[in-house]
Amino acid sequence: MESSGTNSPSWELLLPAAAAPARSRGRQLQEALREAVRSGRLAAGTRLPASRELAADLGVSRGLVTEAYEQLTAEGYLRSGRGAGTWVGDSARAAVRGAARGTRDLAPHQVDALVSFRPGTPDLSLFPRTAWAAAHTAVLNTLEHHALGYPDPRGLPQLRIALAALLTRRRGVVADPERIVVCSGVAQAMTLLGFVLNAAGRHTVGVEDPGSPEHATLFSAAGLRTTLLPLDDEGLAIGPLAASGVRTVQTTPAHHFPSGIGYSAARRAELLEWARSVDGLIVEDDYDGDFRYDRAPVGALQGLDPERVAYTGSVSKSLAPGLRLGWLLAPGWLTDEIVARKRTLDLGHPVIDQATLAAFITGGGYDRRLRRCQRLYRERRDTLLAALAEHFPGTEVSGIAAGLHVIARLPERYGPESGFLRRAERSKVAVRPLSDYGSARPQDGCVRLVLGYAHLAPSEIVRGVRLLAQAN
Amino acid sequence: MESSGTNSPSWELLLPAAAAPARSRGRQLQEALREAVRSGRLAAGTRLPASRELAADLGVSRGLVTEAYEQLTAEGYLRSGRGAGTWVGDSARAAVRGAARGTRDLAPHQVDALVSFRPGTPDLSLFPRTAWAAAHTAVLNTLEHHALGYPDPRGLPQLRIALAALLTRRRGVVADPERIVVCSGVAQAMTLLGFVLNAAGRHTVGVEDPGSPEHATLFSAAGLRTTLLPLDDEGLAIGPLAASGVRTVQTTPAHHFPSGIGYSAARRAELLEWARSVDGLIVEDDYDGDFRYDRAPVGALQGLDPERVAYTGSVSKSLAPGLRLGWLLAPGWLTDEIVARKRTLDLGHPVIDQATLAAFITGGGYDRRLRRCQRLYRERRDTLLAALAEHFPGTEVSGIAAGLHVIARLPERYGPESGFLRRAERSKVAVRPLSDYGSARPQDGCVRLVLGYAHLAPSEIVRGVRLLAQAN
Repeated sequence: MESSGTNSPSWELLLPAAAAPARSRGRQLQEALREAVRSGRLAAGTRLPASRELAADLGVSRGLVTEAYEQLTAEGYLRSGRGAGTWVGDSARAAVRGAARGTRDLAPHQVDALVSFRPGTPDLSLFPRTAWAAAHTAVLNTLEHHALGYPDPRGLPQLRIALAALLTRRRGVVADPERIVVCSGVAQAMTLLGFVLNAAGRHTVGVEDPGSPEHATLFSAAGLRTTLLPLDDEGLAIGPLAASGVRTVQTTPAHHFPSGIGYSAARRAELLEWARSVDGLIVEDDYDGDFRYDRAPVGALQGLDPERVAYTGSVSKSLAPGLRLGWLLAPGWLTDEIVARKRTLDLGHPVIDQATLAAFITGGGYDRRLRRCQRLYRERRDTLLAALAEHFPGTEVSGIAAGLHVIARLPERYGPESGFLRRAERSKVAVRPLSDYGSARPQDGCVRLVLGYAHLAPSEIVRGVRLLAQAN
Repeated sequence: MESSGTNSPSWELLLPAAAAPARSRGRQLQEALREAVRSGRLAAGTRLPASRELAADLGVSRGLVTEAYEQLTAEGYLRSGRGAGTWVGDSARAAVRGAARGTRDLAPHQVDALVSFRPGTPDLSLFPRTAWAAAHTAVLNTLEHHALGYPDPRGLPQLRIALAALLTRRRGVVADPERIVVCSGVAQAMTLLGFVLNAAGRHTVGVEDPGSPEHATLFSAAGLRTTLLPLDDEGLAIGPLAASGVRTVQTTPAHHFPSGIGYSAARRAELLEWARSVDGLIVEDDYDGDFRYDRAPVGALQGLDPERVAYTGSVSKSLAPGLRLGWLLAPGWLTDEIVARKRTLDLGHPVIDQATLAAFITGGGYDRRLRRCQRLYRERRDTLLAALAEHFPGTEVSGIAAGLHVIARLPERYGPESGFLRRAERSKVAVRPLSDYGSARPQDGCVRLVLGYAHLAPSEIVRGVRLLAQAN
């Protein structure tokens, strides 16, 4: 019996590395056989050499070959006849690989811009790595074993208790640990609310216009329709809200995104009145409420009426978006449904992360972190304002002194927007116009930019503004 | 002007702790005021004392009081008239607290049973805390800053590359890093598939019966109907599958849960044939495929046809469920939709966790961990079988030598099931009958138990079986 006649495959392709230990050689042989079957190099119906012969050909022990044959027969790559003989089965099919795929998308993050003013990210180089690692180590030294099991979908009790104290103190919310659901940032909070409201027959939600397009995307994915609702200079305009017929509305009252205004006290009261009159719900996205530079942050709307406001925030601006850690404080009438939905989305949040954040908060690390960022971000905001005044004289910066971005209205001579953006791109400075975030188009021909500054060192801010000015 | 007349509130309730520093006393005053308004102790319309008077009453600086008034006016708790005077506003409403809530549910995990054989959890006391902390620290020392930003919803490239190598080697899958989606365990993989299949018009999924009830729960939450499909002793029965009309089916071919059988090679081939004939999809839940005690684990079905099988697994059995880390290897025709859905569920998985697992795998920690557990769990399985043979002679243990649980059929004299379970409960030994997991009811009157053993020390296993025997 010939094991490698003219029409037979070349069995050497199965040859394991001679230097490898026996167990590893066996595995290599199995992998090579699988791959040969999958790729079609060993076609269905091909008879394999007897184990003794293949072993001799490859210079390996017969046991290794027998084991490989048995393994691949159990898996369905090979089949063995009654009595004698092993054939390639016809079960295996290769994956169709997209031609253009490969490892292109796996390449590290590319930043083409020299300076990017795109808003939304804090300074990631300030992430408190040492303190975070210390909190993590402390957690691994003390966390009870059972806590590593399937988590409570609401979140780890010690984190909910720590968050309740933190948010009561810093943001003036009414924070019952029983009503806090730990989630993957504000995005998941919106998704959770979207699913629960949809299931409750509330199929439409109003969203701020201008606002983050992300909200509409997330609500839509949960099956909701969204209605764009305009703002005036005190916040979401009540007339259009009332006329829209929605009973749920997304808001950013502490610091509207992107315009940067804070909702007025009167508007806050009117909003709550509206919510009570329609049995409605206000979704309060407190995305950057920790950062205010001219006075204490205005407390959350939720504190005024926890049954009419669902409050959500995260560590995405205060620590890092990559942690994917946030919270949702839901009214009592929504809590159980939200927890049930959180459970079916992912069974609850990773436990060690939660315990680490709890330790970080209770150990004072979170407050220290915020104080540090508060100081640095204020300096950066000042630097940006000074640079704009120098290089783009006549620019008006609007919005309260808060958060991680400003709105800058450049003098008319820099318009129109399309030309300005083209020149900015050529100068490799990434900027986003306010028009990216809303449906309204101002008629004055001025360029309005949403400039994120918190992630940039002062020297980069100055450089970016200078480059922009040189190009314009 | 009287600041505390007979009908006036007692302003002393606002008194901050005298010893506190000024900033903190200011905050205390604000919190006390908010709470007093919310609770109704300061009723709407109540006029507040002039700041000078309240400051004198409380023995604090006037600035502290003015600041508190301004802050709470901005937030909507108070309102100030034109010219002079500050009143309690009517915006605030207290949260309705459920009477029975409180901190009851926040109490630490309670285990009433002396010994619990409930299946589904590995030994959490074996979690490699030191090695995991070391990997975490290494990650924090080396991770690039930009990686802490919003993650790739598919998962961190280095983890997908590490998982592709690991799963190819250990489980024989075809694992293109481009097709791996990192997710929160098998549960989220099911949820993701459920949403995507539902959106694609595939509204029904077949699930193994008996099987984990969790699958049906998760698919239902994603809007799918589920059809129970029976198994025979080779795996999912093909006849009923084909007759059901479903085009998607959930399976556990490496080690069926709960019966413990491994799908036969013939059945694996038939399943794939079925999937190809109906343009169908096999969902392969490889929940405990790492643990096999008598031979090498049978490779995943996915390796035979990656376009017809969606493969999912997690670290829940190999490390800890609390990590909420798993993976989904999707066919090419589903990948983009799954990634898009993952994005709207949570924007992607926490980054540091992903990097830590990648470091743990590439550093060899994962293989070491599996070898250690493999050895210990095999011992525990042997201990359980010996204890059953000693204390419940005549018991038949079925299924392959794999995973974290066995099926034990006790001799008829221990039945019926209801009585046995009552006696087990009285002896404080937690067990789950096989009947919890399926619709079929065996007619032989024998008690069949699903006994998890991996999380128990050998001495606990012996004790549990002895306690059960004493009660019966």
